[in-house]
Amino acid sequence: MKKLTLMIAAMLICLSAAAQQSLQSRAAVKSPEINPDKTVTFRLVAPKAVKVQVTGDFLPAGPNGQQGIADLVETDGVWAYTTEKPLDPELYFYNFLVDGLKINDPNNVHMIRDVANVFNVFLIDGGRADLYKVNDVPHGTVARVWYDSPVVGFDRRLTIYTPPGYEQNPKAKYPVFYLFHGAGGDEEARIALGRTAQIMDNLIAQGKAKPMIVVMTNENMNQEAAAGESSFGFTQPSMGASSAARTIPQGVDFVKAFPDIQKYVEKNYRTINKKSSRAVGGLSMGGFYTVSVSKEYPDTFDYMGVFSAGLSLSQDPADKAKTEQQLAVQFSKNPKLYWIAIGRTDFLYDSTKSMRAYFDEKGYPYKYYESGDGHIWRNWRIYLTEYAPLLFQD
Amino acid sequence: MKKLTLMIAAMLICLSAAAQQSLQSRAAVKSPEINPDKTVTFRLVAPKAVKVQVTGDFLPAGPNGQQGIADLVETDGVWAYTTEKPLDPELYFYNFLVDGLKINDPNNVHMIRDVANVFNVFLIDGGRADLYKVNDVPHGTVARVWYDSPVVGFDRRLTIYTPPGYEQNPKAKYPVFYLFHGAGGDEEARIALGRTAQIMDNLIAQGKAKPMIVVMTNENMNQEAAAGESSFGFTQPSMGASSAARTIPQGVDFVKAFPDIQKYVEKNYRTINKKSSRAVGGLSMGGFYTVSVSKEYPDTFDYMGVFSAGLSLSQDPADKAKTEQQLAVQFSKNPKLYWIAIGRTDFLYDSTKSMRAYFDEKGYPYKYYESGDGHIWRNWRIYLTEYAPLLFQD
Repeated sequence: MKKLTLMIAAMLICLSAAAQQSLQSRAAVKSPEINPDKTVTFRLVAPKAVKVQVTGDFLPAGPNGQQGIADLVETDGVWAYTTEKPLDPELYFYNFLVDGLKINDPNNVHMIRDVANVFNVFLIDGGRADLYKVNDVPHGTVARVWYDSPVVGFDRRLTIYTPPGYEQNPKAKYPVFYLFHGAGGDEEARIALGRTAQIMDNLIAQGKAKPMIVVMTNENMNQEAAAGESSFGFTQPSMGASSAARTIPQGVDFVKAFPDIQKYVEKNYRTINKKSSRAVGGLSMGGFYTVSVSKEYPDTFDYMGVFSAGLSLSQDPADKAKTEQQLAVQFSKNPKLYWIAIGRTDFLYDSTKSMRAYFDEKGYPYKYYESGDGHIWRNWRIYLTEYAPLLFQD
Repeated sequence: MKKLTLMIAAMLICLSAAAQQSLQSRAAVKSPEINPDKTVTFRLVAPKAVKVQVTGDFLPAGPNGQQGIADLVETDGVWAYTTEKPLDPELYFYNFLVDGLKINDPNNVHMIRDVANVFNVFLIDGGRADLYKVNDVPHGTVARVWYDSPVVGFDRRLTIYTPPGYEQNPKAKYPVFYLFHGAGGDEEARIALGRTAQIMDNLIAQGKAKPMIVVMTNENMNQEAAAGESSFGFTQPSMGASSAARTIPQGVDFVKAFPDIQKYVEKNYRTINKKSSRAVGGLSMGGFYTVSVSKEYPDTFDYMGVFSAGLSLSQDPADKAKTEQQLAVQFSKNPKLYWIAIGRTDFLYDSTKSMRAYFDEKGYPYKYYESGDGHIWRNWRIYLTEYAPLLFQD
């Protein structure tokens, strides 16, 4: 009966904790409900609301590209909407609009922040989206780590993925993939909406990617860490100038400070410290940084992945000449892979096009991957699933 | 001009990403605003709402102990409420109620989940609450790690804190503190609302706690991991039976399966493998498990911390005799510390009282800490700040 006693005690604790700690209870409905036919039903209990809508990337966009919106219909105080068609496999996000007020779904605890927006998420499985799920496969470790950055003068935060087996094989050494976020992002972006841990676990389990360490950086050099994780407290993140900014030495940027990260990683992790075992990649601003960092340090990386970015040659002749010279040096060293990916409707499509034209003109080899859609997370997950299997294969 | 070009490109990316990726923009007001006098103002833009309220643990509780609620007042569509008095230092949580619908504050991205409720949080600094902040001190690493549990037959997830210097001192070995959650919690509970990483970083920086490894377990043995982190997908967590449950061998419980965790930790981390370098502690259900695990393995731990729990002696004579015998064995081995903490209004206050009476009767030494309030996270943070400094000090 010992176990029973314990169980009863635990149940009492449950009840009391629920009663004492929780706020006015949520009106519990199932939302979202993924139906057997892969349509999805959203529900919200809001008897006093006049209008309830759902908005998210699973709905067709409006005529000017604005996020799709659908109306929920009320029955006895419960609002509901079911998608007209089954949804394709994907990780989707949404919010409700209650009389115009954007809110999170109170019946879905699963939310992911993107800059200053917090979205609810759900996943339709199948196809590529199965790579975004936690599956019953060996899992790597995800660590939030602080490194000393002498170039900026304070400690900063990284998210580091080590592959399954890293702890169990204390003699094994691994290649390293440095993965950069976009503007407004931070060291949480690629692990959250980017699903890096799930994608890497699944690709490695399927034998499609080599076991590797993935280092997710924070490129906002005046930040210690993501909002809420730094000594500036629970600040509200923003796309522009951060309110949680420290002063950094003049002229310091992510490119100049990058070696501090590499030094920390190679000192504290079991890494293979050669060019053919280092990759870099990033989305949007992180794609531009992939270009900049890799040409600044032409002996460091053998794999470059430029997602939804391009090459911006300066109008200033001296700067332009320097960039061209750096690229010439980088390509003279025969990097194994320069991988460029863009969505067909991305506003940076032409930037990538001119980059390819320039590379073609110079005879710089690269591989190109084009997807649908534009400058969105859906593409950045796809690009990771396409790029990671190409790394460290010889 | 190279940097300028890059900046312009980055800004373009900002604008476009914001336009393409974000949903209908939040009406931006500052909420919560911590005023210079430590009153706090909450704001919400909801011009069509009839009634807006805020509810949270910073408000005085109602006559029957229910969570306090305050009304916001509308001016030109913006609702606002400022606390009547300055708030004491603490990590607080809150939600809004819009015409009765409980929502998160759309202007505050900082939310913490407790079982199936997601709360917004804010912190008033000063006093003990400074231990709950990220301060400019050396930070430990927080890792989500999967261990193999042969006793249950599948891999399960842990949250592990390693102290500052762990990576930089590859020969150093550390004591280990196993920290258990309460009913409805999981391996995310103690790191989230529990603020374990911040508390440990700060206590260690102040020289008040020894550098130690803290292992935060998941005691729900039929779960692989917290909701959303297991192969069951984005399930909704609940206090009771989990929908994300695997089948486990009959008779297996957290006490029986605990050695799998210890084995993993001692094999894969640089631990000091002796009784005087192992501590255990937990809150509520985790407090009961602290009693159970430590008496089941009387040679394992020298430090026991029972937070907001007690001793439940079975009505079954054989079970009662076994428990008494196990405790007699445990105390015959002179553990260094048995620490018992409870809040004055906790519904388990009498359970702790009878535990103390029993220990007194048997002559089992223990230390006792009593705080205000009841069965709430505020106390569980306090108990960690009080208990951790007592560990591994000789």
